[in-house]
Amino acid sequence: MILTFEQEKAIIRALLQRLGANEEEASATAEVLTEGDLRGFGSHGLLRLPYILRALKRGTIIANAKVKVVKETPATALIDGGHGLGHYVATRAMRLAIEKAKKQGIGAVGVHNTNHFGIAGCYAEMATREGLIGIVTTTTDALVHPWGGMEPLLGTNALAIGIPSKPQPILLDMAMSVAARGKLVEAMKEGKPIPEGWAIGPDGRPTTDPMRGLKGALSPFGGAKGYGLALVLEILAGPLVGAAMGKEVVGTLEPVEGYSTKGDFMIAIDPAAFGSADEFIARVKKFVAQLKKSRKAPGIKEILVPGEPEFRTRETRLKEGIPIAEEVWIELKQIAKELGVDLKGLK
Amino acid sequence: MILTFEQEKAIIRALLQRLGANEEEASATAEVLTEGDLRGFGSHGLLRLPYILRALKRGTIIANAKVKVVKETPATALIDGGHGLGHYVATRAMRLAIEKAKKQGIGAVGVHNTNHFGIAGCYAEMATREGLIGIVTTTTDALVHPWGGMEPLLGTNALAIGIPSKPQPILLDMAMSVAARGKLVEAMKEGKPIPEGWAIGPDGRPTTDPMRGLKGALSPFGGAKGYGLALVLEILAGPLVGAAMGKEVVGTLEPVEGYSTKGDFMIAIDPAAFGSADEFIARVKKFVAQLKKSRKAPGIKEILVPGEPEFRTRETRLKEGIPIAEEVWIELKQIAKELGVDLKGLK
Repeated sequence: MILTFEQEKAIIRALLQRLGANEEEASATAEVLTEGDLRGFGSHGLLRLPYILRALKRGTIIANAKVKVVKETPATALIDGGHGLGHYVATRAMRLAIEKAKKQGIGAVGVHNTNHFGIAGCYAEMATREGLIGIVTTTTDALVHPWGGMEPLLGTNALAIGIPSKPQPILLDMAMSVAARGKLVEAMKEGKPIPEGWAIGPDGRPTTDPMRGLKGALSPFGGAKGYGLALVLEILAGPLVGAAMGKEVVGTLEPVEGYSTKGDFMIAIDPAAFGSADEFIARVKKFVAQLKKSRKAPGIKEILVPGEPEFRTRETRLKEGIPIAEEVWIELKQIAKELGVDLKGLK
Repeated sequence: MILTFEQEKAIIRALLQRLGANEEEASATAEVLTEGDLRGFGSHGLLRLPYILRALKRGTIIANAKVKVVKETPATALIDGGHGLGHYVATRAMRLAIEKAKKQGIGAVGVHNTNHFGIAGCYAEMATREGLIGIVTTTTDALVHPWGGMEPLLGTNALAIGIPSKPQPILLDMAMSVAARGKLVEAMKEGKPIPEGWAIGPDGRPTTDPMRGLKGALSPFGGAKGYGLALVLEILAGPLVGAAMGKEVVGTLEPVEGYSTKGDFMIAIDPAAFGSADEFIARVKKFVAQLKKSRKAPGIKEILVPGEPEFRTRETRLKEGIPIAEEVWIELKQIAKELGVDLKGLK
């Protein structure tokens, strides 16, 4: 199935609103999920909507959530997301961080009582659209083993950093695992081995069998360094913001019995607080050009900056439409039928 | 040669003061250099003092530097380090970030016109001693190639993150290269090969010959992810703070003809702005205990948290003294003689 950007957003909005989400919640969620699909992060796109709808039905994600600032300084805030839609809560949080950064030079906002928020890069990019630097981290269910350990005790804990530039921002968006869990699931379905280094089996030894990897733990990227980074991010988006950490983080993979216990932490920085904003962007742009023009290693055609491959996929899919996996589409049609929503009418 | 902690500090202070550094500058520099040696980062310890003394003589590091806040908001500041001793300027910068964080919940301070500041972890740890989270990054001469590229265009750009805990903080302090340049120099001196993945040769291909690696470029840790992180840090401690970036960063390896063009960027975050500071530390401490008790991979005796190996080395060296390489000691004695400083009198 191929959907246009607008079609996908309309479908998501309609289904969410049918289950009680208000317009702002539905729009924010539709925006970020569709951006996930546009950029090629299928695991963070429409694929997730059935989980979200199930959680809304069950009441573990709450529609019309009471999002409250529970602690605040001119430069910081702690938000209780009221167990609302994670994409909406995170959008509110970054908006507040941006507002504070514009006044104070920097703004930091923590979030708890929230849900999976899709691709972290979206919120970092929100800051760049206002000429600010955005830094976003979030916790996930524990999937990654500590360096030297064999139990999954740390989340894949996305870290996104957006730097304003032209024509598009530099947008780093990475998980702390070498590979996403979804890639192991994919390999398992296709009966293919995974590269050594992606995961360890239940015996604590590196494995190339995706099924054993899923039963064991994902390995942190870059060895001890990635482990260290995963750990500090787990603390920033965990205990710092009043959210869970380690194995107590639940509800980011599939809806659970209770509420999700994940947290987010976001920072916006205004380059104008440190110098000329225009000069900042001009220098970044010039350096990107220099990187791209520099000599390539044998066999390499092009040097890319973070975010560039995803922005290209986005351009293509804006024109040619977004391919949606058949099983996702079948599931959605079924849900739409149950909810009495006519998907055809939305296209 | 074995020096006690106090001896090393006294020697550094005396030599710096002899070349015009004031007491505060000499003490801050002695503190951080000695901490480098105490923790086993020999390349960031006494080894660097001759470079610093040479630069002071030449006037490319300025004693009695005019350190000025040139731009400020309640939560941020930009510091012109007046080309002063990097350790002193960075100490001042983190002190200011801490002061701001205590009032505003978060404080961010950028620095330009400064010099190599030793181990980044020292400044992140300063924040933890006040119960705050410290984040520190800095640029270095370009040594690391972009992913897919073969020219050294990015610094090793240390990233240090300190999280207050007990009995000691979690202290991540890492470079963006797989291995430090110093390790390649060491391998070359010893006539040993380096592991594949550390560096590429001048032909852009991975090499195990340290000499070819030094002529080529260091590889970023964790592949494209480490490259992305190195790039965004280069921007934070570069154009954001009015410092150089890429190949224009000079003076962090050896003194150069002119001034060093490096920059620093530091953030302090007060957990009390987001919740209970005591509960924060209690939860971090509990999680560290859980990590350390978790099941180990085959052949592993212990799971460590970032900073732990270095704190152990520090304990040992506080008791048993700091081993100083013979060539470093001979060079220092020569310099002391030229400057008319009696090293024996300091012990």
